[in-house]
Amino acid sequence: MKWTKIEVRTGSRTEFIDITNRISEELARAGVQNGICSVYMPHTTAGLTINENADPDVVRDILAGLARLVAAAGDFRHAEGNSDAHIKASLMGFSLTVPVIDGCLALGTWQSLYFCEFDGPRNRQVLVGISEQAG
Amino acid sequence: MKWTKIEVRTGSRTEFIDITNRISEELARAGVQNGICSVYMPHTTAGLTINENADPDVVRDILAGLARLVAAAGDFRHAEGNSDAHIKASLMGFSLTVPVIDGCLALGTWQSLYFCEFDGPRNRQVLVGISEQAG
Amino acid sequence: MKWTKIEVRTGSRTEFIDITNRISEELARAGVQNGICSVYMPHTTAGLTINENADPDVVRDILAGLARLVAAAGDFRHAEGNSDAHIKASLMGFSLTVPVIDGCLALGTWQSLYFCEFDGPRNRQVLVGISEQAG
Repeated sequence: MKWTKIEVRTGSRTEFIDITNRISEELARAGVQNGICSVYMPHTTAGLTINENADPDVVRDILAGLARLVAAAGDFRHAEGNSDAHIKASLMGFSLTVPVIDGCLALGTWQSLYFCEFDGPRNRQVLVGISEQAG
Repeated sequence: MKWTKIEVRTGSRTEFIDITNRISEELARAGVQNGICSVYMPHTTAGLTINENADPDVVRDILAGLARLVAAAGDFRHAEGNSDAHIKASLMGFSLTVPVIDGCLALGTWQSLYFCEFDGPRNRQVLVGISEQAG
Repeated sequence: MKWTKIEVRTGSRTEFIDITNRISEELARAGVQNGICSVYMPHTTAGLTINENADPDVVRDILAGLARLVAAAGDFRHAEGNSDAHIKASLMGFSLTVPVIDGCLALGTWQSLYFCEFDGPRNRQVLVGISEQAG
């Protein structure tokens, strides 16, 4: 198993970037037919999620919903002033495992995998590991 | 490794359905003794979680808590009107990995695995992949 | 693959305990060089997350943010009175998969792995499974 790094350049303080094609490229390179694709976020103010890619308003509404859930300012003490980003990252999560079937990511029809930036813009990374599972 | 599909018929707009027995059946069929059970949700308005199965009021309270967190209506633009469901699905998550020890799911005493419907009723699917891990 | 149990004694109703070193010890014992470290929470009122370890105010702010999101009292029916803990656990999640590269957990620079207690103090456990992945 080889873990590879995907570089992601984000452009706003908060945004979701569709990284599905980037991960599919790693899968094609790995040549795995059946197994698991693990995706890992090595940052603390960005998370990973899956959601709809057909209507961009879905991602817009998720960001708006998260902004209502976690106000940017509040009863926070962390001096960097980005506590909201740390909280949102933990709400979305840091690892995902996606099925690999017949050499493809077995995502649902409307699903994409999103890099969730909550404290950008920054140069970021995501780790991808694909393992063939006998059976 | 063989990924299998579990079909789930949901009956309400929002509900949690205990799919632990369905996954245990797949594990028995796979005959794996020690390894990992990966569960994957291929939808964007339903999620996966684990929680208590002893008192049904726990699931009821989680659904009530999520309804307070994410109002059904609000400053949303997605024309289908189910943005709350997309947000709740991302809050619960789309993949889980559960230990397999001595041929069983190593869930905690009070744990069950739940299909979290947020925009039903619908015919849904869950993917289950079980892999033996040598060691 | 051998799943091992880490025992965690929590000291407050809500707190995050950094278990990174405990998991790294399991990794050293397993002697795995490249693969996946799976961490699993067998409880229903405690969760797992990753976040910053440099400034302790980050964890303090995450706990404060979660307390605002999910009030301890409310329209809850579960007789044990800890529904807020069940909801917070589902928001953080119950499983994490972390890359193992060159014999180490490939966490980001500021990342630690946290046991998230929401209904302590209690004696708790976490399951850790490390698998070498050929490739």
